[in-house]
Amino acid sequence: MLQDLLLPEIRELIVTRDEATLHETLDRWLPADVAILMAKLTDEEDLAAIKLLGGPQRARIFEYLDRPTQQRLLLSLNDADLGSLLNEMADDDRTSLLASLSPDDRSRCLDRLTAEQRALAESLLQYPADSVGRLMTPHFVCVRQHWTIQHVLDHIRLHGHDSETLNVVYVVDDNHRLIDDLRIRQLLLADPQRRIEHLMDSNCISLRAGDEKRSAVEVFRRYDRTALPVVDVTGRLLGIVTIDDVLDIAESAATKDMQKLGGLEALDASYADTPLLTLVRKRAVWLIVLFLGEMLTATAMGYFEEEIAKAVVLALFVPLIISSGGNSGSQAATLIVRAFALGEIQLRDWWSVLRRELASGFLLGLVLGAIGFSRIALWSTFSTIYGPHWLLIAVAVGLSLIGIVLWGCLAGAMIPFGLKCAGIDPATSSAPFVATFVDVTGLVIYFSVAIVVLRGTLL
Amino acid sequence: MLQDLLLPEIRELIVTRDEATLHETLDRWLPADVAILMAKLTDEEDLAAIKLLGGPQRARIFEYLDRPTQQRLLLSLNDADLGSLLNEMADDDRTSLLASLSPDDRSRCLDRLTAEQRALAESLLQYPADSVGRLMTPHFVCVRQHWTIQHVLDHIRLHGHDSETLNVVYVVDDNHRLIDDLRIRQLLLADPQRRIEHLMDSNCISLRAGDEKRSAVEVFRRYDRTALPVVDVTGRLLGIVTIDDVLDIAESAATKDMQKLGGLEALDASYADTPLLTLVRKRAVWLIVLFLGEMLTATAMGYFEEEIAKAVVLALFVPLIISSGGNSGSQAATLIVRAFALGEIQLRDWWSVLRRELASGFLLGLVLGAIGFSRIALWSTFSTIYGPHWLLIAVAVGLSLIGIVLWGCLAGAMIPFGLKCAGIDPATSSAPFVATFVDVTGLVIYFSVAIVVLRGTLL
Repeated sequence: MLQDLLLPEIRELIVTRDEATLHETLDRWLPADVAILMAKLTDEEDLAAIKLLGGPQRARIFEYLDRPTQQRLLLSLNDADLGSLLNEMADDDRTSLLASLSPDDRSRCLDRLTAEQRALAESLLQYPADSVGRLMTPHFVCVRQHWTIQHVLDHIRLHGHDSETLNVVYVVDDNHRLIDDLRIRQLLLADPQRRIEHLMDSNCISLRAGDEKRSAVEVFRRYDRTALPVVDVTGRLLGIVTIDDVLDIAESAATKDMQKLGGLEALDASYADTPLLTLVRKRAVWLIVLFLGEMLTATAMGYFEEEIAKAVVLALFVPLIISSGGNSGSQAATLIVRAFALGEIQLRDWWSVLRRELASGFLLGLVLGAIGFSRIALWSTFSTIYGPHWLLIAVAVGLSLIGIVLWGCLAGAMIPFGLKCAGIDPATSSAPFVATFVDVTGLVIYFSVAIVVLRGTLL
Repeated sequence: MLQDLLLPEIRELIVTRDEATLHETLDRWLPADVAILMAKLTDEEDLAAIKLLGGPQRARIFEYLDRPTQQRLLLSLNDADLGSLLNEMADDDRTSLLASLSPDDRSRCLDRLTAEQRALAESLLQYPADSVGRLMTPHFVCVRQHWTIQHVLDHIRLHGHDSETLNVVYVVDDNHRLIDDLRIRQLLLADPQRRIEHLMDSNCISLRAGDEKRSAVEVFRRYDRTALPVVDVTGRLLGIVTIDDVLDIAESAATKDMQKLGGLEALDASYADTPLLTLVRKRAVWLIVLFLGEMLTATAMGYFEEEIAKAVVLALFVPLIISSGGNSGSQAATLIVRAFALGEIQLRDWWSVLRRELASGFLLGLVLGAIGFSRIALWSTFSTIYGPHWLLIAVAVGLSLIGIVLWGCLAGAMIPFGLKCAGIDPATSSAPFVATFVDVTGLVIYFSVAIVVLRGTLL
């Protein structure tokens, strides 16, 4: 990559404190690319670079650095640099950075903001951590419906510099209530002498500041927008949310769901950036919960100890049988959790999902049951490992598989419904959690079937 | 929802074929909302509605319908309606719809396109199914560097109607090679008499038509763009990709990864839209593969049948022990697969991941081993279920857990690396697949440890 080639040159500029050449060199690059280069510097070098740089360029680059680097740099800067950096940052990026700091550090940062910026930052920090309010920027272009398009374009040229996006302008009334949003294309394609009110269709999609971040993803997807306005309960326009943030939210929500499905607490940072002990803690919690749950398998097996002692052959199939239940449960849970996250199914769909899983589970159970039966039958023609009653054992295993796979599908599909109904995130019913549940109940099914089938022969 | 309230009225308009009122009513709505309403109509009603509607409004609504509905409606239309609908559709939506049809239906559709649209559709269909080319639209505004901004704005007003977005304009040279992209904000904020070349920074990010769709997501995220240009190998501008499509790609890529991690083949449609037999097939394939793999557990257990017969108590802990390995393997696999998908780790990071998993796995193993040991010790103070040698059993279980959890973490983390190295999608190393592998090897670890610890006493 280009960054690697230029690294020695950049290092030289930092060491010699050649501010002018550094500015000029980095100015030719996109801020996101400079941020990648910064990540390759040592802690002393990137701090020196951030000090040498200044103005909006510094803030843009800083916004692209990862969170731990941002925190480290921020807290190493002197008050003057800290203030100028924070005052230049985009509102949404600044809000999430400030929210990640300790209360003491946060108040030191807030103290360095201008009165206006400070009021703004504090108001944005008041929204809940996972609300749309935290993604908001109050910098947008708002216009009045009696203005001509030419007037709007002149207004943008004079006052649009701070706006997060100029792709959309917002029409408000005397009370700053949102009436409509107009995409810039509508203005650019129309006669400049036309009035805004003639372009309006009063079909305006907006978000609420208190909405969950995740719900914004669905609105952006459904309506294919690049920016959406945020209003309060009275309809007053508070700010806007842009799609670049929403794409990040969509990816991180999917990551969190995946991690929960994978049976661990969602990480807050990337795998590589998460400290080892945090990583262990986030994994240990669920691993212990699942372990305690799985202890019930030892209890369940204990009830059937006598049967196992009489027919050790039964124990041989325990891992095969319970893992089949676990796997079919994982599949069902994964499908249902993701369908919930994407809004493809709702709570009221439980009955149709139950019917589908009943049918799928039965078919899948038949397939696995048939394979299991054939395997035992086949082995028994070549060896005596399963003894003279191999046919009964094959029947017991086959029937158990049908029951357990069916049960796994039902449990995997219905547990997420139950959690959602109770107001808990369905992703928490992570696949291993379902598997553990199915393991314990599966053992009971298996041994019960075996006792019925083998009574009078092996047992 | 509004749609439900208006449904009877809309049905009435369809039955009475009141085209004018229908047009007028639906015109007040956003196409995405009309599409939701259409989904509530019967098959006959929505076909009648699509026939009554016409022009661009019909195409916009149609684009928001789900794929099965689109296919059904399309193939029920007569040639004239089919042609006018397809000619009006956006290129990217049309390409993916055409690609989903059978060859016969596709060629019937292509025959109804105008010569120009047909050439375009055919050229877009030539890109591979999961390539950026399939997301592309060739409708964008391109300008020359010697033009003034005013000239560009006039040009947009005259020629911009078909452009997919006006948020970005593209500067090309005499050979239609891309030189730079300018966001509309840069044009709106500058003096209209300035020339384009004065705004250019020659810092232009572009995609290649042959790139994978997924890779586009990362570029959009890194550079926070709303549209990106697509060029061929010589740098000629072929088309643009807009972020609304990229958000869909990000969500569907995450869904596919999640489903693979959940141990099934990725579905092509939503859970509710997938026919039952397809659903069963996609699940059965992996369930059978995993079942065949798990059969090795029966074989492994067979080797230790003699030990189990001597000490039935050993069998009681089999489900507990192998599920702990499986759960820790799922966790590791989930973390690594997602980190790969987001580009957070690369193949060259295998060594640092291995070291982290070695440390995490050992710590997690210690925790579970200690709990397992304590559980057996505790139970033994109240009951005689584990016999006189309970301490040795507790030691065997505790030590096995350390080994198996460590092994689960290593296998879960390294199998995705191995698959990626072999050019296979790491998500295919779905968590249950790792679990199955760990189950089989875990049994061997458990019984080997037990034989060493219990030799001379129970065994």
